[in-house]
Amino acid sequence: MGVVKRIAILGSTGSIGQQALDVVRALPDELEVVALTGNKNLKLLEKQIKEFRPKMFCSSAKPDVSYGRQFLPLGEIASHPEVDLVILATVGKDGLAAALAALRAGKTLALASKEVLVMAGEIIVREASIHHTQILPIDSEHSAIWQCLQGEETKPQRLFLTASGGPFYHYSQAQLAEVTSEQALQHPVWKMGKKVTIDSATLMNKGLELIEAHWLFSFPFDSIEILIHPQSIVHSMVEFVDGSLKAQLSWPDMRLPIQYALFYPERRFNPGLPRLDWRKIKSLDFEPADYDRFPCLRLAVDAGKAGGTYPAALCASDEVAVELFLSHKISFTEIAKIVQETLEQHRNVSHPSLEDILAADDWARECATRLSSAQSGKHEGRGNPARKR
Amino acid sequence: MGVVKRIAILGSTGSIGQQALDVVRALPDELEVVALTGNKNLKLLEKQIKEFRPKMFCSSAKPDVSYGRQFLPLGEIASHPEVDLVILATVGKDGLAAALAALRAGKTLALASKEVLVMAGEIIVREASIHHTQILPIDSEHSAIWQCLQGEETKPQRLFLTASGGPFYHYSQAQLAEVTSEQALQHPVWKMGKKVTIDSATLMNKGLELIEAHWLFSFPFDSIEILIHPQSIVHSMVEFVDGSLKAQLSWPDMRLPIQYALFYPERRFNPGLPRLDWRKIKSLDFEPADYDRFPCLRLAVDAGKAGGTYPAALCASDEVAVELFLSHKISFTEIAKIVQETLEQHRNVSHPSLEDILAADDWARECATRLSSAQSGKHEGRGNPARKR
Repeated sequence: MGVVKRIAILGSTGSIGQQALDVVRALPDELEVVALTGNKNLKLLEKQIKEFRPKMFCSSAKPDVSYGRQFLPLGEIASHPEVDLVILATVGKDGLAAALAALRAGKTLALASKEVLVMAGEIIVREASIHHTQILPIDSEHSAIWQCLQGEETKPQRLFLTASGGPFYHYSQAQLAEVTSEQALQHPVWKMGKKVTIDSATLMNKGLELIEAHWLFSFPFDSIEILIHPQSIVHSMVEFVDGSLKAQLSWPDMRLPIQYALFYPERRFNPGLPRLDWRKIKSLDFEPADYDRFPCLRLAVDAGKAGGTYPAALCASDEVAVELFLSHKISFTEIAKIVQETLEQHRNVSHPSLEDILAADDWARECATRLSSAQSGKHEGRGNPARKR
Repeated sequence: MGVVKRIAILGSTGSIGQQALDVVRALPDELEVVALTGNKNLKLLEKQIKEFRPKMFCSSAKPDVSYGRQFLPLGEIASHPEVDLVILATVGKDGLAAALAALRAGKTLALASKEVLVMAGEIIVREASIHHTQILPIDSEHSAIWQCLQGEETKPQRLFLTASGGPFYHYSQAQLAEVTSEQALQHPVWKMGKKVTIDSATLMNKGLELIEAHWLFSFPFDSIEILIHPQSIVHSMVEFVDGSLKAQLSWPDMRLPIQYALFYPERRFNPGLPRLDWRKIKSLDFEPADYDRFPCLRLAVDAGKAGGTYPAALCASDEVAVELFLSHKISFTEIAKIVQETLEQHRNVSHPSLEDILAADDWARECATRLSSAQSGKHEGRGNPARKR
């Protein structure tokens, strides 16, 4: 039995936050929840506070009661002396400042929020290095790569990020243009929030993960490949210089990468985690991703390579475009077009500060909204009732 | 660039030996061949000696000329002060004494000969422990497991040995009984010697590997499972206590596990080794092995669990039975029957000495030959001309 690890879960009412608490429920002797933070779901946050009795909490809407706990700002929680490890699972750019606060206080950062490394990879990696602290991925793909790299002394040659491909992977261009948000929200494997489900269908999600992988493993973009793997059993692979590959496999369950980060470098038996059953799996399929039919992949790689504030503009314009698609204002294929046009109009800032990044985010939101008004007009004019509000 | 490693290749004229020399050809700056040993193929041995100019050599038939090199017995070569690492790739039980000599002299032992650990696992593992030296597997399956275990601090829960299944995996009992040696020698994936090709078709080869895995990784028999995987891309897998699995994948090429053992814990770029191409692979299939249609698997597990001299009796009776099948004296399904009856008649010696093991080997050969004369009579009486001599 190890020492008790004191964890803060930023974004505890979201999907990852709830699953992190499930891991704590399964292994309570070695984990202590010292802080929980939520956004607007105060009802669930209250329930979690009553169950886990953290010392501190935070929420975007401050509740009337404090449940006998200390209400502190996100940044103070992330850097609090009584916290050993911060799980960052907030939505969007909210986690950026908290991530920096955690790293500057020397906390281990278990990272679920994609935006942190995508938008501010250069700053985040630099701060982690300066403060000699670790960034542990809790995305399934990056956890897979991280697990495969354990004990390897020679730098690998290629990374293969797997992608389920989403529900439309074999659709033609014409079929993709007709996809509705209702169809897009039916993800074949993972149960996730709406934004990430649409990003999975456009493969933008995989593009963002590719940028994350670049920063997490300091790996060149051209050596990271995307493989479509519909079963989502192989979570990613690493190819070494001798032609040998390692893959990490498991039933798709986010509690596994969360738990791996919490107990790294050890593993813990957790009877609640599912086991692969080879009588049921039978076959694992793979094919290289099609960057032409899924242009979000190319946009993400190009933004990642260009660096500076491009990735922030990518994230922000995608967020706007997805929101517009969900509210039936633009078509599925117009998501990529809006992102592309935003990036084309973006004036890059190299080696940006956090302020530059947040300014680029603001600018891109405005730009994407402006562009989409034009698209939206065209779109509604086409008179497809399924896509109307 | 590392220090030059001085290697002795015992069995250099066999398939593994030749591929080991191919690795030396590709990476000559870090490997020095100080000894080569062959069996009866003096022509090839001479060619190898002229190319690699080892200090010592050995062969079962002593040649008239010494090629200006020192002719030494196998045991002296295996324990020679100028040898750092011994690749043991001899056939059958010939390597047993040499393996012990190498370990007792503190040499790293890169092991390809299955019989060494199957017949004498207890002694071999004990000697390696006493002399603080390592046994490195160069079988593709065991190398895969070994690679997957790198950097893992928690003991795994299950090992999955993959098997191509051989050419007859989906044959019925009746079809199996009619298989000819000509058919059995056509292995779908690996090019190997005759004995191991037939053992692959009966799955005895996988049973022997299961016993090897038990000793190499000190893993209980009931936690080692066999998965049929016809593509032979995933060479084996390890399941950890949290439900996560790691798999090692590569194009089937024995030079990869050989090279991994030679440079462990590092890896080396070798342009001659093939790379996986995911545009060609598309699908990886798996199914649990059928111990009923392939009784050699059950026989091997039972012999391994019983321990003592049972595994030696298993190996020896299988060798006799395969030889008889190859010379058309018994049918394919009679191989397992002869091994089974030999094991049933065997009087076990627990914690055997090397002498006990070799005596069990002699006894089992006699017993299997005696049993097969009876089978052979029946078999030839059936009048299948394809199986006649």
